[in-house]
This record gives sequence, structure tokens and C-alpha cells, in this order.
Amino acid sequence: MSLYDYYEKIYALEAQGKKIIRLTAADPDWRPSSVALDALVNSIKAGKDKYASALGIPVLRKKIAAMHGCSEENVIVFPGSKMAVFATLFVKCKSGDNVVTFAPYWGAYSLMCKKLGLEFKQVDLTAKSNFEINWSEVEKAIDFKTKVFILNSPCNPTGIAFREEDEYKLIQLCKSKGVLVLCDDAYRDLSFDERKDRKLEEGIVIAQTWSKTFGMTGWRLGYVVSDEATVREFAFFNQLTISNVPVFLQEAALAALEEKEEVSKIARGVCKERLVIASEVLKGVLEFAVPNSSFYVYGKLPGKMNGTDFAYKLLEEGVAIVPGEEFGGEKFKNYVRISLCFGKEPLRNALEVVARLVRELS
Amino acid sequence: MSLYDYYEKIYALEAQGKKIIRLTAADPDWRPSSVALDALVNSIKAGKDKYASALGIPVLRKKIAAMHGCSEENVIVFPGSKMAVFATLFVKCKSGDNVVTFAPYWGAYSLMCKKLGLEFKQVDLTAKSNFEINWSEVEKAIDFKTKVFILNSPCNPTGIAFREEDEYKLIQLCKSKGVLVLCDDAYRDLSFDERKDRKLEEGIVIAQTWSKTFGMTGWRLGYVVSDEATVREFAFFNQLTISNVPVFLQEAALAALEEKEEVSKIARGVCKERLVIASEVLKGVLEFAVPNSSFYVYGKLPGKMNGTDFAYKLLEEGVAIVPGEEFGGEKFKNYVRISLCFGKEPLRNALEVVARLVRELS
Repeated sequence: MSLYDYYEKIYALEAQGKKIIRLTAADPDWRPSSVALDALVNSIKAGKDKYASALGIPVLRKKIAAMHGCSEENVIVFPGSKMAVFATLFVKCKSGDNVVTFAPYWGAYSLMCKKLGLEFKQVDLTAKSNFEINWSEVEKAIDFKTKVFILNSPCNPTGIAFREEDEYKLIQLCKSKGVLVLCDDAYRDLSFDERKDRKLEEGIVIAQTWSKTFGMTGWRLGYVVSDEATVREFAFFNQLTISNVPVFLQEAALAALEEKEEVSKIARGVCKERLVIASEVLKGVLEFAVPNSSFYVYGKLPGKMNGTDFAYKLLEEGVAIVPGEEFGGEKFKNYVRISLCFGKEPLRNALEVVARLVRELS
Repeated sequence: MSLYDYYEKIYALEAQGKKIIRLTAADPDWRPSSVALDALVNSIKAGKDKYASALGIPVLRKKIAAMHGCSEENVIVFPGSKMAVFATLFVKCKSGDNVVTFAPYWGAYSLMCKKLGLEFKQVDLTAKSNFEINWSEVEKAIDFKTKVFILNSPCNPTGIAFREEDEYKLIQLCKSKGVLVLCDDAYRDLSFDERKDRKLEEGIVIAQTWSKTFGMTGWRLGYVVSDEATVREFAFFNQLTISNVPVFLQEAALAALEEKEEVSKIARGVCKERLVIASEVLKGVLEFAVPNSSFYVYGKLPGKMNGTDFAYKLLEEGVAIVPGEEFGGEKFKNYVRISLCFGKEPLRNALEVVARLVRELS
């Protein structure tokens, strides 16, 4: 548990009174809109706090269905998209099956697979090749025990959205092999090419969240769009676990969705500004593909510099980042992930500390 | 899925404009206190809505620890006690293990076991013997593959709290056999003998909820108290699924706990009044043990009258109840569960409809 130790070190330094700029967060620093907050307060005051449908409230499901070009029966509200990923693996795979995704990847995927007795297979992409898909490796990774391919685009940690034609090609490839594609679209609305909501098609599960775009990480709100039979399986999963997402949170979620276009636009603007700063400061310092979305930079340190060692040294300088191997293991031990969820000036200063330390250690 | 069909029938009748008195609910009809509601609103306004600890907020964990005579490290906040039951089975058992409980039991237990590939074993108790524990059957049911014994006292559906000395005996017996006792204490504060909070001891997991006593069913708030290692396993489970319970809900939960004594007392008073009515009206109609807690009556119909058939016939008279086999299968096919979450006068009228129909069909 190296990351755990690392966070303990952060807490220990902070307890000593040291100020640490945390470029570790997957937590946007913007607030939910007042419309969503008011909707929550009104809903709770109206007593919308009893047991409710495991599927979600009809008005919210209808709204989501319209966004994804499907029917209400294709939609279920979940307590966060992480839960949706877990539920997909739990419901669709059995012990001994395998799950494939591109690396680097969000570490939760492999931890879930391990806990569920599933083999986790990664198709490695590199900063050098701009994290482009290696198609022959995809073909090689998928076998008769592959049940799910997780497509996280834009990707945490790279901040890269795959080209839409590549996503299409991947979905068709998986479909031809009978492999379900789990589209973890948490960052989709922060993609700078302003992608529309993904339309539901056969053979996919769309997992979405209010956490990133709307800055509602701690609300635990997400949803899944898939075929009706899968949605019924998920409803049964909810019945056995969380019962239902609180109705007063769903009503706030609905209010937030009404503002999705404006909120996404503002959030993308903030992300772009920060990525311009990061690209300026980190150019020639790390090897990275300039992100086309969201708020991460994932780059390779020069030479054989180790990401974990570097992260510890950087901590002594008052800046925290995440060692790259958290997102793909050994092969990514020379990488680091830098999150940009921070105001412009302190962000620039912190990134300059990163750049200086890399140069000093090179 | 007979219960599913039954609920569909209720919806269909209601859609036709028919008024159905639902004596099916596990959902108390009282509201959360204004103190809890205000705490929620203040917390959300203060921006307590970002990612947070998978264990829960320290101030709430400390409060809960004090109640159960243990340390903060023994406590984790969960999105409902149902999730806590699921997590216990998920974390503590592997495919092929078995789980034992008394029947009648809350149907979710057997469904969870089935979904997790666990054998579910029931020790049958009967209304005739006042749902007293059959100790030789307990001894017989526990074998080397038994990992968890679920003790639900007071019990849904019987409304019976086992004697504290019997609970003690069961826990000791399980401990001697290396079997973990999962104490699902959802209804404990509605026990008329005013039980104190269960003290943590070795070999048990205490699952508790704000749903029943505080009338906060739809909030999805609960907690678990157990040994530190188990709590860490649960924290990892949360990290892989819901991440954390929203902090603004935890602050409301804390405010609710501050009023626990008064709120429990009022809730018990309401339950007692309703059980007096139910006992009067149903005496000699159903064979049942007079409940010493909460808000259910679980009784056997006369002769060979089938619970499901009866429930459908009763529906035509405008009253819904739950067929007894939902709580233990075939052996309980002549039983019904009647929930008393209803105001006194409409409750009495609805129960008189039940009594009249039983007499007519006898």
C-alpha cells in the first residue's frame, strides 16, 4: 500500500504545521450550482426522504433517457459511477473471467477485479506514443474469458479523450467478440471537443456521474444507461445493497442537469486555462501528451527517475502528486500524475516547484 | 417473484383509482426531527459535500463509539444497514460457505446469499411456540462451513426481540464455533424493554441504521461496529463501491443521535399503541406471538389458508399485506406479515377488514 503510506506522510507533515499543496485531488475545486443546492433543500423540506424505487425517480430517468437517445427503462440512478463500475463487474462477471482496459488506468478498476476474483488485463499505452491505442495488443488481450472491456475516455490519469472514431472501432471490435464495453464517461463533459452525450447502443454500459463536471463529488450521484435486462440486474443489485439513491439528492441531480450545458462550458474553460499553464511549465520537464480534457497531466520523468521516490522528495518541498505506478503498476513506475484542481496562481507556483525539482534531480 | 407480481397488482389497482391501504411498508410514517433536517441544510450550505473518508467523519464515529463502549477505530459509517449486511457477507464469506439465521427472517438475507454464492440455512421458529429459539436446531445448523450467523433482534417480520440472555447464549455458542455473529439491530431501539446500545464484544458485527427509529429510511444511513481489522476491510469495501457517505448526511445523522433517547421513547410509544390495537383486532384471528417491539405482526392463518392467496383476496378489499413465505419460504406459506406504519383509526379499520376476511374464509 505505497499510496496509503504516501498519504500518511502528507497527514504527518500537515500535522507538523507544514503547508502542502495537494496536486493529488480528483476533486474539482468548483462548487455545485445554487440551483442544485436549492433543489436539495426544497426536496428535503417537502419530505422526499422515504424508501423509493431502486431504479431512481421517473422524472430523472426520463431526462437521462432523452440525453442518451433511449427509453426510461434503459436508465438507473446509482450512488456514484464508481458503484456503477463495481456493479457492472459484479453482475456481469464470475470468478475466473477477465476484464481488459488500457493502461494507465484508474486504480480502482484493478482493485475491484482483484476483490471479485477476476483477472485484470491491461493494454499498455505510452506517453511517447501520445497514449494512442495499440490495436494489435487489444486483439491479443481479449480472449474467450474476457467479459468486459473498460473504456475510460477521457482517461484518468492521462486527461486524454480517445478519438471518437477509435472509440467506435473499439466498441465494434468488442461487440464482434461478445465483450461488453463499460464506458466510464465520468470526464466526458470536460472533453474540449465538446462531445455530445453518448448514445446508447447494443453491447455497452454507460456509467456517468455528477462528481466532476458539476463539482458534486461527495454527493455520491451517478447513473447507468444500458439495455433493459442489464438495468433490471442493476436494480436487483441496488435492492440488495443501497436500496435507492435518496430522492432529495435525485431531485438536486435533476436540477443540476437542467444547467448541464452552461456548467460544462464553464468547467471546460477553467480546465483549459489550467492545462495551458501546466503545459507551459512542464514542457520539456516531463514527457507527456498534452491533455485534450479535464484536469490531469500524466507524464514520464526523465531518465530512470522513479515516480514514487520523486513524489516523496517533492513532498519535502510542500507539493503532493500521485506516483504513476498507481495507474498501471511497474511499467509506469517512472510516471507521475499531477492534478490541476487548484486556482491559477498557486497552481503555477506549485508546478514550478515540480519543474525545478525534476531539473535538479536530472 | 411472487412478491413482485403482488406489488404490480397493487400498482395496477391504484392506477384504476382504487384506494389501497398498504400494511406492507417497512417505512415508519413519522418524520425525521427538525434538528436533523436543519443540520443537513446547514452542512450543505457550508460546502461539506466533497470526497471524504471511507470510514466516516471522526466526530460521528466518536459519538457512535461512545454508545457501544468501543473506540473510533471500531466504527464505520455505511449507506444503510442493508449495505452493512451485504458488505459483511461479501467480505467474510467465500463461495461455498454458509450463513445461518432464524426463520422467519428478512428476505434480503437469503437473496444476498444466493447472489454471493453462499448457502443459506434457516432454523425454523413458529408462532405456536412464540418464536422461541430451538437450541438443538441451532447446534445442528452450524457446521464447519458456517461463517456468519445473522441475529436480527427485534426481528423483521415477527416484531419479537429475543431475550437478552438468549442473545448472549447464541453469541457465546457461535464464538465457541468460530462463527461471526452479525447483529442486525435495525429495530433495537424500538424494543419495549428499552434495551441499551449493544456493547461491542469479540466475534460480532453490529449493524445499525437511522431508518426505523428516526424515520430516515430514504436517507440511506447506517453504521457498523466491529473489531478494527473488520472495520478496515469494510473501509476498503467502501473505497471500491460508494467511496464515502455524504458528509452533509453524516452531520444530520449526528444531530439525530443527539436526540436519540427522546426520539426512541416517542417512537416506542407510537408502536405500542398500534400493537395494542393490532392485538385486540387480530386476537383469535391469526396465530401470532404478541410483539414486544417495533411495528409488525407476523401470524399464521387458520387451517390451511394460504398467505399468498389471502393477500390477493385482501387486496380486492383495499388492504395490502405481505405473504408470509417471503420471510422463510414454503414452511411459512400459511403466514402473513402485517405492518402497522399507519395512523390509529385507519389502521384499526384496515385490520378489521383483515379479521373479517379471515373469518369469512375460515
